[in-house]
Amino acid sequence: MSDTPQTMRAVQLLNYDGRPESISFVENLPVPRPGPGQVLVKVAASPINPSDLAFLAGMYGFKKPLPTVPGFEGSGTVVANGSGTMARFLRGKPVACTVADAKIPGGMWAEYVVTSAQMCIPLAKNITMEQGAMMLVNPISAWAMVDEARKAEHKAIVQTAAASALGKMVVRLAKRFSLPVINVVRRPEQVELLRQIGAEHILDSSTADFDAKLKDLCQQLSATYGIDAVAGELTGRVLRAQPKGSRMFVYGGLSLKSCEIEPGSLIFEGKVVAGFWVSAWLARKSLLEKLRIAKQVQALLTTDLKSEVQAQLPLQEAAKAIEQYMKHMSAGKVLIIP
Amino acid sequence: MSDTPQTMRAVQLLNYDGRPESISFVENLPVPRPGPGQVLVKVAASPINPSDLAFLAGMYGFKKPLPTVPGFEGSGTVVANGSGTMARFLRGKPVACTVADAKIPGGMWAEYVVTSAQMCIPLAKNITMEQGAMMLVNPISAWAMVDEARKAEHKAIVQTAAASALGKMVVRLAKRFSLPVINVVRRPEQVELLRQIGAEHILDSSTADFDAKLKDLCQQLSATYGIDAVAGELTGRVLRAQPKGSRMFVYGGLSLKSCEIEPGSLIFEGKVVAGFWVSAWLARKSLLEKLRIAKQVQALLTTDLKSEVQAQLPLQEAAKAIEQYMKHMSAGKVLIIP
Repeated sequence: MSDTPQTMRAVQLLNYDGRPESISFVENLPVPRPGPGQVLVKVAASPINPSDLAFLAGMYGFKKPLPTVPGFEGSGTVVANGSGTMARFLRGKPVACTVADAKIPGGMWAEYVVTSAQMCIPLAKNITMEQGAMMLVNPISAWAMVDEARKAEHKAIVQTAAASALGKMVVRLAKRFSLPVINVVRRPEQVELLRQIGAEHILDSSTADFDAKLKDLCQQLSATYGIDAVAGELTGRVLRAQPKGSRMFVYGGLSLKSCEIEPGSLIFEGKVVAGFWVSAWLARKSLLEKLRIAKQVQALLTTDLKSEVQAQLPLQEAAKAIEQYMKHMSAGKVLIIP
Repeated sequence: MSDTPQTMRAVQLLNYDGRPESISFVENLPVPRPGPGQVLVKVAASPINPSDLAFLAGMYGFKKPLPTVPGFEGSGTVVANGSGTMARFLRGKPVACTVADAKIPGGMWAEYVVTSAQMCIPLAKNITMEQGAMMLVNPISAWAMVDEARKAEHKAIVQTAAASALGKMVVRLAKRFSLPVINVVRRPEQVELLRQIGAEHILDSSTADFDAKLKDLCQQLSATYGIDAVAGELTGRVLRAQPKGSRMFVYGGLSLKSCEIEPGSLIFEGKVVAGFWVSAWLARKSLLEKLRIAKQVQALLTTDLKSEVQAQLPLQEAAKAIEQYMKHMSAGKVLIIP
């Protein structure tokens, strides 16, 4: 801890209302100290994810006591550690880490963060801090959902928000495993964007014949595995188009609306709607499984699971960074660099 | 077939629009003849169920070619049979039967109906034609859902439309198995109605503190098994109140609206929404299991699984019978008596 300062610069959230005024920049927050099993990470980079936006608006799965530092995932170097084998092992190493846990008070949009050693993954040498910063939320979610689809032997996937960072990862990963994907986007310009990364089936939900075309494709390819980040009426439209006995996993609510599901889809067609949350999914995995997943995901982090970056902004411009990301979510991640 | 006339009186459905004008009474429809594995039943009684209303409005799981005779379940006496052991065995016997199958063209609101011998259950001597007529849809659905809740070791059930015929059966049956039920009704007068049959936990969704009270009760009793016949926003309100990891089975859509489900309930709380359809549930059972279920249900048909009757009307007053049932659905079944 000898080289570590006493105070740090950080972003603070003052209210769970999603307003720019509720994001504040502070210069003299005490640098936290790692307890048993914890590490202190000098933060290198942290992205803004849809889950951060949900957290800022008070719509995430939990709230932390205010004021709090936001930012669920990022990368950095472990500069101090508490007791414990894992914490000692990580000392001096570059890591990807997350604080998306109600029990961890801090966040990544700061110069330093304390997190559990269990929530860090050492970064391989070929992984940059920028790519490592975006490893835990999108790449692992994409990898998990495609893996679940393959394990349950679904013949094809249908996904909404297909032009999102995560959506594009699903496109590339499923292609690697020869699993067809039907991609649903909400704006015409996103069709070309997906075409460029090799997506084959792309449908724009704002077109007139969307429902008929979607149904044809879902039936033809037997797309019984659905993943949805939009919610609202789109969830029900996709579910209606899917074959009997289909499963739909909702992992986001970009429309900020409730999923609208026709009772007939559930009753007469045996369809099921559930959720997917990467934290809960990882929590069900053993340590050995976690390490295997981390290895497989890192091996694809510069190819299939690569995240695009549209801008890098310093801590003091966090509110501006959030604004830019919300305006152009398909243009790539906005990174916050302490 | 010697005593059977050539023609019969029947109700006919002309359009799937749910309008009274689309229900017609005819006097000279040919009496159908049983094919292999089928029986001809001289109909004694047939109820109007919510599933019949959905069928009349074109909102059921399938449509039959028009014009068709409606009425999914009923009772009667087998007066003729096609080939096959089961069909021969049923000759002369009183039966409960159903035609809720896209492959059977006819319906029960007629003097005679042909159905598959597999879809008939011989009635025990102590069962009247009136009670037998209402055995296959409500009692078996109620029995099935309570049985599934017990098998999966749920600690309590929360149900909507609790004052319906099926809802009241669930109340009595769950009480027999000491399984607590939280009953959600939509009108104040239904609270007293349920109190009279021994329901303990009754909440009126039209009251101001409904959501808070429902959440308290669901958490306290651990009501992780939900059954819903209303759909619309009520599905999501009940799901939100249930503990983490809960299951909700939608078996009806009385509100005629889509289920509104908050993404957060699915993502962060691991809740799952599925459907329940008695036809699909029964189809998954072996013949032996079916017979065991039929025996258990008949044993309770004059007690827990008893259906109340508010009126009995002849075929020519079918449109009036439907109107009366829709106005007072909690007052008991309306039977159509050929």
